[in-house]
Amino acid sequence: MNNLSKRLSLIKENDLYRDCRYFCSSQAPKVNMEGKEVILLGSNNYLGLCDDARLKEAAIKAVNKYGVGAGGSRLTTGSYDLHRKLEEKIATFKGTENSLVFNTGYMANVGILSALCDRKWVIFCDKYNHASIIDGCLLSGAKLVRYKHCDMSDLERKIHIYKGKNNLIVTDGVFSMDGDVAPLKEIVKLAKRYEILTMVDDAHGVGVLGERGSGTAAYFGVSEHIDIQMGTLSKAIASVGGYIAGKKEVIDYFKNLSRSFIFSTGLPPASIAVSLKAIEIIEKDNKRRERLTVLSNWFKKELKLMGFNTTDTITPIIPVIIGDAKKANKLSENLLEEGIYIPAIRPPTVPKGTSRLRISLMATHTYEDLSYVLKVIKEQGRRLQIIEG
Amino acid sequence: MNNLSKRLSLIKENDLYRDCRYFCSSQAPKVNMEGKEVILLGSNNYLGLCDDARLKEAAIKAVNKYGVGAGGSRLTTGSYDLHRKLEEKIATFKGTENSLVFNTGYMANVGILSALCDRKWVIFCDKYNHASIIDGCLLSGAKLVRYKHCDMSDLERKIHIYKGKNNLIVTDGVFSMDGDVAPLKEIVKLAKRYEILTMVDDAHGVGVLGERGSGTAAYFGVSEHIDIQMGTLSKAIASVGGYIAGKKEVIDYFKNLSRSFIFSTGLPPASIAVSLKAIEIIEKDNKRRERLTVLSNWFKKELKLMGFNTTDTITPIIPVIIGDAKKANKLSENLLEEGIYIPAIRPPTVPKGTSRLRISLMATHTYEDLSYVLKVIKEQGRRLQIIEG
Repeated sequence: MNNLSKRLSLIKENDLYRDCRYFCSSQAPKVNMEGKEVILLGSNNYLGLCDDARLKEAAIKAVNKYGVGAGGSRLTTGSYDLHRKLEEKIATFKGTENSLVFNTGYMANVGILSALCDRKWVIFCDKYNHASIIDGCLLSGAKLVRYKHCDMSDLERKIHIYKGKNNLIVTDGVFSMDGDVAPLKEIVKLAKRYEILTMVDDAHGVGVLGERGSGTAAYFGVSEHIDIQMGTLSKAIASVGGYIAGKKEVIDYFKNLSRSFIFSTGLPPASIAVSLKAIEIIEKDNKRRERLTVLSNWFKKELKLMGFNTTDTITPIIPVIIGDAKKANKLSENLLEEGIYIPAIRPPTVPKGTSRLRISLMATHTYEDLSYVLKVIKEQGRRLQIIEG
Repeated sequence: MNNLSKRLSLIKENDLYRDCRYFCSSQAPKVNMEGKEVILLGSNNYLGLCDDARLKEAAIKAVNKYGVGAGGSRLTTGSYDLHRKLEEKIATFKGTENSLVFNTGYMANVGILSALCDRKWVIFCDKYNHASIIDGCLLSGAKLVRYKHCDMSDLERKIHIYKGKNNLIVTDGVFSMDGDVAPLKEIVKLAKRYEILTMVDDAHGVGVLGERGSGTAAYFGVSEHIDIQMGTLSKAIASVGGYIAGKKEVIDYFKNLSRSFIFSTGLPPASIAVSLKAIEIIEKDNKRRERLTVLSNWFKKELKLMGFNTTDTITPIIPVIIGDAKKANKLSENLLEEGIYIPAIRPPTVPKGTSRLRISLMATHTYEDLSYVLKVIKEQGRRLQIIEG
């Protein structure tokens, strides 16, 4: 295992070594991190549901009735009536005929792409798509063609090169590390024109965007034109898992052919019950989503005014681009000393030279806490010469 | 999506179409399947812990303290002190320096193999290894060389062909669909002789075999000679997840380089708490394991005496080979009518022409129920002319 040591040393030398930070309380605006209370600003718990009393109750009820583990793969002994109810609920939530739950978003993408595509396919992929999409493309054996981030001219140019093959365009709905959204209307237009299938990974859009929170495609009014709607249950939905929503036949196909679905134990009943309850809440509770938008817009504006390099998006994901990995680390560490936890995101999660603090807000953050964060981040940004002043 | 219809039709024509059966109660020797009580004989809940009161209590305690979802990836905001405690516990349980928990066994295999190996590697793979190992090999880009099931001469012959490269031998500890165990002593000898790394996927061995239930490598007394010990938390351990156990440096490496680990939300605290408690129970409770062995040996012997084509293994997995997919289905359906659920296992899970009933026992099955099963399976086996008489 000599190679391992060398590669690890290299990672450490380049300030890219990573380790876990451990929480001793639930994912919430304030967490107990190894005994110290800190304000958390990097969570995907966008709607603040991870410690919601109704979801806890749903989990406990499921544990009492169904026990703790699924005990088998979904097609043998690991499916419960809860799984069926959740899959029906996701379908109505997304406006499709049926859906299928995978254990994680990673497994959904890998399972979908490898079951759908093979060597004869060309997959057009936004350059900033999530790693699990890339892994799914690689596993499928299809030709992976990456187009410039959200660049429709580049996409069209590349479509021309591979016209006439089995083609698929895959994009994140909301880009997880940048917070911007894919131009789905334009993508749908291109897909229609060139007869290409479309797939959207809406991990960070579902629950946050669109009517009833049903996601980025709904936000743009193009849901019915997306062939494969994929998303996760682990972010706004506050549980764990991934899903695909689509026509009945499409779902039957992946149920029978997605290896990551077939060859894995089902999710525990409690996790399924939590997702089910969370979607019920999300569908009805527009206020939570609205508050998240208001908070995010205000927070972004303030950061911009200070001179930070950030984006102007419609989501609660706010990247503060630093560039250098070491400096991003340093800013994150300094903030932690002041009681604020925003993890630094470095390669391989983001491209080299774009290390950043990925801020993300929850609907349950308070103005008081966020004002304190703005004050401290300004001080530290100046101290590290990231902003002027 | 025309191709999908065609492929689905083909699956249906060949009696290979599969759908879920839904339980309305916990994974236990008797389950409520859509309103009907049936004896369950196909579960991976080998030790019968899925509905154990102590595990339910651990889950509920964790939900109350930590909420329902992890909220982020393990390296950003999704690690809890429970994750660390579980990883420490797995390490002492397996006798290694450290461990790392993945969301599923599938993700562990895919994440480990793709981070360790690349085009320059040759991976020697038992022909019956789990699908997730194959997917991991494919994703890594390494040359995949399959050797005949448990055939050490064939393995050595193939090693000779690729001598001098970066080599890895990967094998299941217990083969999930056949119940037999890998000849780990011989594999370790070959690995030493030819300086090859070794990896064991002990999904179905952990909790069942070896001192304190620590798995197949412990059973053969070769734990310290296996470089990468991988296993799952979703079978005997009654929760969900996969792990890798090994030296500290090895764990640090995969923590920083396994894409399926990096790019996925952590498991919910409750699932982690369940695994932790389950391993504590398993380490101490030898009686549960002993009872499982006694039951399994007796049940296997009885099936053999009836003339069924089964194997003589040391595990609770008992394949009853039928061959034809349609006939395997028919036997499974007939048993279900008599209140017994044993799923038929067909391709792609097993090779063509080896469709089977995969019986697996739990430590909590009663002699009374199992005697009834033996009576019915004999009648139905005769009726379908699978056995004589």
